[in-house]
Amino acid sequence: MSDTFVVVGGDAAGMSAASKAKREDPELEVIVFERGEWVSYAACGMPYYVKGEIEHLDDLVAVTPEEFRDERDIDLRTGHEVVDIDPEAGNVTVEGDGETFEQPYDHLLVATGASAIEPPFDGLDLDGVFTIHDMDEADAIDDYVADHSTGSAAIVGGGYVGIEMAEALSARGFDVDLYEMLPHVLQPFGDSVAEVVEDHLREQGVHLHLDTAVSGFDGGGRIERVVLEDGSRPADIAIAGVGVAPATGLAADAGVELGETGAISTNEYGRTNYENVYAAGDCAEARHVVTGESVHVPLALTANRAGRAIGQTVAGDPEPVGETAGTAIVKAFDLGAARTGIVDEVRAREAGFDPVSVSISASSRAHYYPGGGELTVTLVADRATERLLGGTVVGREGAKRIDTVATALTAGMTVSELRNADLAYAPPFSPVWDPVLTAAKVLGGKLDRA
Amino acid sequence: MSDTFVVVGGDAAGMSAASKAKREDPELEVIVFERGEWVSYAACGMPYYVKGEIEHLDDLVAVTPEEFRDERDIDLRTGHEVVDIDPEAGNVTVEGDGETFEQPYDHLLVATGASAIEPPFDGLDLDGVFTIHDMDEADAIDDYVADHSTGSAAIVGGGYVGIEMAEALSARGFDVDLYEMLPHVLQPFGDSVAEVVEDHLREQGVHLHLDTAVSGFDGGGRIERVVLEDGSRPADIAIAGVGVAPATGLAADAGVELGETGAISTNEYGRTNYENVYAAGDCAEARHVVTGESVHVPLALTANRAGRAIGQTVAGDPEPVGETAGTAIVKAFDLGAARTGIVDEVRAREAGFDPVSVSISASSRAHYYPGGGELTVTLVADRATERLLGGTVVGREGAKRIDTVATALTAGMTVSELRNADLAYAPPFSPVWDPVLTAAKVLGGKLDRA
Repeated sequence: MSDTFVVVGGDAAGMSAASKAKREDPELEVIVFERGEWVSYAACGMPYYVKGEIEHLDDLVAVTPEEFRDERDIDLRTGHEVVDIDPEAGNVTVEGDGETFEQPYDHLLVATGASAIEPPFDGLDLDGVFTIHDMDEADAIDDYVADHSTGSAAIVGGGYVGIEMAEALSARGFDVDLYEMLPHVLQPFGDSVAEVVEDHLREQGVHLHLDTAVSGFDGGGRIERVVLEDGSRPADIAIAGVGVAPATGLAADAGVELGETGAISTNEYGRTNYENVYAAGDCAEARHVVTGESVHVPLALTANRAGRAIGQTVAGDPEPVGETAGTAIVKAFDLGAARTGIVDEVRAREAGFDPVSVSISASSRAHYYPGGGELTVTLVADRATERLLGGTVVGREGAKRIDTVATALTAGMTVSELRNADLAYAPPFSPVWDPVLTAAKVLGGKLDRA
Repeated sequence: MSDTFVVVGGDAAGMSAASKAKREDPELEVIVFERGEWVSYAACGMPYYVKGEIEHLDDLVAVTPEEFRDERDIDLRTGHEVVDIDPEAGNVTVEGDGETFEQPYDHLLVATGASAIEPPFDGLDLDGVFTIHDMDEADAIDDYVADHSTGSAAIVGGGYVGIEMAEALSARGFDVDLYEMLPHVLQPFGDSVAEVVEDHLREQGVHLHLDTAVSGFDGGGRIERVVLEDGSRPADIAIAGVGVAPATGLAADAGVELGETGAISTNEYGRTNYENVYAAGDCAEARHVVTGESVHVPLALTANRAGRAIGQTVAGDPEPVGETAGTAIVKAFDLGAARTGIVDEVRAREAGFDPVSVSISASSRAHYYPGGGELTVTLVADRATERLLGGTVVGREGAKRIDTVATALTAGMTVSELRNADLAYAPPFSPVWDPVLTAAKVLGGKLDRA
């Protein structure tokens, strides 16, 4: 009899693992339990649905449940919630279709994702107050906006979801207030990016309230005000995007070990402390490519890659889940902002490095070629080894050049190795020295003088 | 007394070397002889000047002669031609300002560039027949087009200059015929790129004549026809862009050794067979990052980088000139096409590799996000070592992603290392798996099965 591979959670990591395992070993029985109705959907696309650029929420689904069932021969059960794992017995308890049953497994993947953090705010249950973490909520926001698309929108949290929602609600006709507790938005991107993004948000008419803590929302049934420490401001809709936390309850209750980050601890193959129990995606830790430390970076590519590798491992051909550089990119109106690796100097010191950094600005195209924009590139390296630690890119075009830096991090390159990379030049695409190379040149000079 | 550094040729390599040497060692006397009047100009921008996107030819100049003289303290002498080098005596013979004189040097850089190859065609002296290799010729084309901007334009040669000029003359109102002897345009980019570009050129109304040898031009004073092996076609202007050859006569006459490619042979510091004579830019060979072989790749970044390194070496702080991957990118109307490393399988076999390649097509953005385009990515790797050898990217947006591949080549990455690079994802910028990663995944699978 062939093995059974049970997957808990039907989004990026779970469906990647199920698909890869079945493709590699068609004899394997692959069962996926998803408590909701949506599978394999692009949560990252939800702001653009709210904005109105994507017509149907269904468009965000990469592969439909029917395709998984009929074309990939995966036993996908939506509306089924795994409520208990018994690793010693090797089975899970499932609730669905009005009954509770046990399902044995030979291999189990916990891919339960992350949930939006509920901030400790008053008034979260008011009409017009939303988080944005699942598809049903995106639909609810869209419906609400269709009925109330005037007035003020309050975005709480200047992370990438907050910034994307500022753009979306601005496009839908709201006057947008963005509240951030910290001195800058996009904290993981560092100050050089944040300052460029903040200037641009203001240009676009967003009212930025930095260093500003929200304590709740107020109104009669429906939201009317955002309550601040010293007063309040009007709001007709509010989005609380203060971050996500790994959904680990099910695993932790079963004795699966969590790491210091609070996410599920895994080895390089995505295994937990139980030999045949894996974890991947937003509920699990990943290894950082620069520090080798376990980190919690809930991002789509990391989830997809780890799921795919675990599927291959379960099918009998072990594959490491890969490492993360925490590479991220975000659109903020007409800007792109991107980061990879270790950008924060405090964090770099904690990891045992002596960071040296530079920021440069350069045109995205040849200086004489029309249509380019200014790109600001920041690079961080270790003084003693000259190894590249991380970087950021922000500008109207070309933020995807962060990939050059991310690739260099994966390869463990030094600054002078990156400086010698033979990057592409033609006037419509780049100056002769790509801005990333210019930053590497300047950082190399700073290291030489150090 | 301080040393004298003499530079022959005032474009990319020469002016980069002069500037860097003077900056590193302000005591150094730096003299540049340039036989023409233009220095530090972007030859790559000339098609866009002809197209009409750049108003003044002067805009292509990065640094003016006055700035070199006044701000960088470089003794720049335009209109001065070096006619002889005596490496034993350590001096050059110069003609300029109506006189001939000798200039001693302690260090010499030959940066004489390349010249457009004169094809063995009849009728090259007809009015309306141009090559495009220097600024004066760009001006002459522009003047001629201003007087005759109707009718047919014949572009001979489907390299990147030919394709850029097809776009330029099409924009200026000509009906464009493009003649290429080989079965495909953009030969160094490989067939997968060529086919996409050719389809697009036809969509844009360019008449492609592949596998078609031109034997000359015909007309009464002014060009009227392109003469083919079997007949002729009307033409009101012709651009013969059949390639460039290194300008090595001056150096060769002085006993400077040339390599097998015909360009000046240099070591890793850009030195020729004479200890204190360097060569860089389009007249010199460079080392290929994948094969380690000496190659002639006349491209701007290679020239700038080598010049800069030689300037630093001459100033007393030796710096290798770096290696080339032959990375190139070209705009063809609305497409971008890019290449790096070894793309051609025959070439890969000659270099001792056993090449395996894949081509994939994927969207440049998330499938549901508006405005993206299809990108075709080709990757080539060595079967035994799984080392990446080269790649190409072509599409309406995102051809600059070739930089990911180029960086991987510089780092000597394998396919599975590249596949694990943590590249940036957000719906407006990329699918979750960047097309380069998708290509690496597919190539990895092919290598596993091989």
